Amino acid sequence: MKNLKIFCDTFLGKTPLKMLREGVAPHELIFPAEMVNSPLAKSGPDPSFMEADIAFGQPALENIYQSKKLRWAHISSAGFTRYDTAEFRAYVAKHDIAITNSTTVYAEACAEHVFAFMLAQARQLPESLKARHPNSAPEWLQLRHSSPLLMHQRVVILGFGGIAIRLLEMLKPFHMKVVAYRRKARGDEGVPVVSAAELPEALAQADHVINILPANADSDNFIAAERLKQMKPGAVFYNIGRGTTVNQDDLAEALQSGQLSAAWLDVTEPEPLPLGHPLLSLPNCHITPHVAGGHQGEPETIVGHFLENFRRFVDEAPLLDRIM
Amino acid sequence: MKNLKIFCDTFLGKTPLKMLREGVAPHELIFPAEMVNSPLAKSGPDPSFMEADIAFGQPALENIYQSKKLRWAHISSAGFTRYDTAEFRAYVAKHDIAITNSTTVYAEACAEHVFAFMLAQARQLPESLKARHPNSAPEWLQLRHSSPLLMHQRVVILGFGGIAIRLLEMLKPFHMKVVAYRRKARGDEGVPVVSAAELPEALAQADHVINILPANADSDNFIAAERLKQMKPGAVFYNIGRGTTVNQDDLAEALQSGQLSAAWLDVTEPEPLPLGHPLLSLPNCHITPHVAGGHQGEPETIVGHFLENFRRFVDEAPLLDRIM
Repeated sequence: MKNLKIFCDTFLGKTPLKMLREGVAPHELIFPAEMVNSPLAKSGPDPSFMEADIAFGQPALENIYQSKKLRWAHISSAGFTRYDTAEFRAYVAKHDIAITNSTTVYAEACAEHVFAFMLAQARQLPESLKARHPNSAPEWLQLRHSSPLLMHQRVVILGFGGIAIRLLEMLKPFHMKVVAYRRKARGDEGVPVVSAAELPEALAQADHVINILPANADSDNFIAAERLKQMKPGAVFYNIGRGTTVNQDDLAEALQSGQLSAAWLDVTEPEPLPLGHPLLSLPNCHITPHVAGGHQGEPETIVGHFLENFRRFVDEAPLLDRIM
Repeated sequence: MKNLKIFCDTFLGKTPLKMLREGVAPHELIFPAEMVNSPLAKSGPDPSFMEADIAFGQPALENIYQSKKLRWAHISSAGFTRYDTAEFRAYVAKHDIAITNSTTVYAEACAEHVFAFMLAQARQLPESLKARHPNSAPEWLQLRHSSPLLMHQRVVILGFGGIAIRLLEMLKPFHMKVVAYRRKARGDEGVPVVSAAELPEALAQADHVINILPANADSDNFIAAERLKQMKPGAVFYNIGRGTTVNQDDLAEALQSGQLSAAWLDVTEPEPLPLGHPLLSLPNCHITPHVAGGHQGEPETIVGHFLENFRRFVDEAPLLDRIM
């Protein structure tokens, strides 16, 4: 096989960069003139991109559209909003460019994160970590008796991909009743998949509504007043998808009225929320700063995942996490 | 079968009391003259106890020793410290009095609680729920990369009973390497059981040390300077057993020095800790006020568990959670 050029616009520390360079050798890494730090920033039109056979990171659409050589782009995040358009899908299909993302890299951490949210809520950790009630005091008994067991509770998962698959494994010992909602049911989900028409009934029964929807035209404002009203009173809402899928004013209202007992959000719009935003002052709204996918050794996991796919590309084997 | 008298010194609300009364009918509930509110308070010598065939709650030792009729005592807690003596064990064996406790009632909630601790620690919830770092800022990357995945980590469980059995089921999807330490290995634990001699080596490898030891002469001060030094630097310590099993000054020192990265305690000695206690001001010490076993419907679960055992007693079937 000829020498491949791999354009990398992902900011990597010394060790993962060395791992990447050694992993692709004898093929060549090439970089944009100005390295960008943010996984979501645009890297802009780049002449060196035009020489690349492969792109790894967050390749700009205009670069992909202008390239005559590109055969594969590996996106270093799980989210791929800006690529998720009919135009882009048609373009890469026509020009035979494979698109993969890094779902697998983040699935374990994201599933642990949302599960940590569920258990922290069930065990009332925000309240009980602050409490010093003496044993047998009325407020102690009240706190003890306010923790619902997860066992046999009902869950709706919105958006069914790698994170949901892993979360289902983690929930198994709790014998929860889980249903999923996704754009296209495949039949291999292992749990019932509900249609848009069936979703209101599922929401009305769920103790936990877990939003893992990606950001796209269909999911914009997906959780707004109407769907919040469809939820079971006292339900708990979790979002580790994208902030744009939620109408935050409506969410704040549902939290204030008690329609929802709590919300746990790893994503908001914008991030971080500006000081003074209503969601920041609600005691039943718990926010982490878009860290659900983070984990020790994350850069190495990202590079390792790319290298596994690179081996497959060279061997002409099916790529992991292929999305287009 | 003759009409049985069941002495009940457990304070129950209206609904669970009705459930109990109806559940034992046509047998008779009898009560101490002064109902006590605390599950750990002594009920004192009681003439009505002398008429009881069965005791349900926290029967005082002196009542049991004086009774000529008692055939079974069902303890309404999982802990049974004051009954856990050679003298008492010999007495009830000689007089053919069965002793059961309520381990099963609390196992689910306790296992969820310690698992909530593990995930909250792994996902750095105490820190990340307070953080508003913008995406890609250095402190954001640091927070993202400071969450170890539970997958494949090592765990030592100290004290192996109903809670540990349930916790093991919950940990299964994470493929953790678990070893247990218990007074008498039975061989059916499903994980390797280490002896006292092997414990230091196990502690030296464990990322998580979970203490579920009951309070008794053997477990007093079990976790003190020496065992804390045996632990892997940066390990996390959890206690949902009893506060007396831990030397809290030594624990505070291990948390201050960084020998332990964090402690999560549901039990302390005393409860609550007095204001100004060193453990209260350590940012890496997280304390809930002895609520691990608490759950929605707890009084009904306690009564339901007793009633199941009562049916077994009447049918002369083996009792659940028999400890003596």
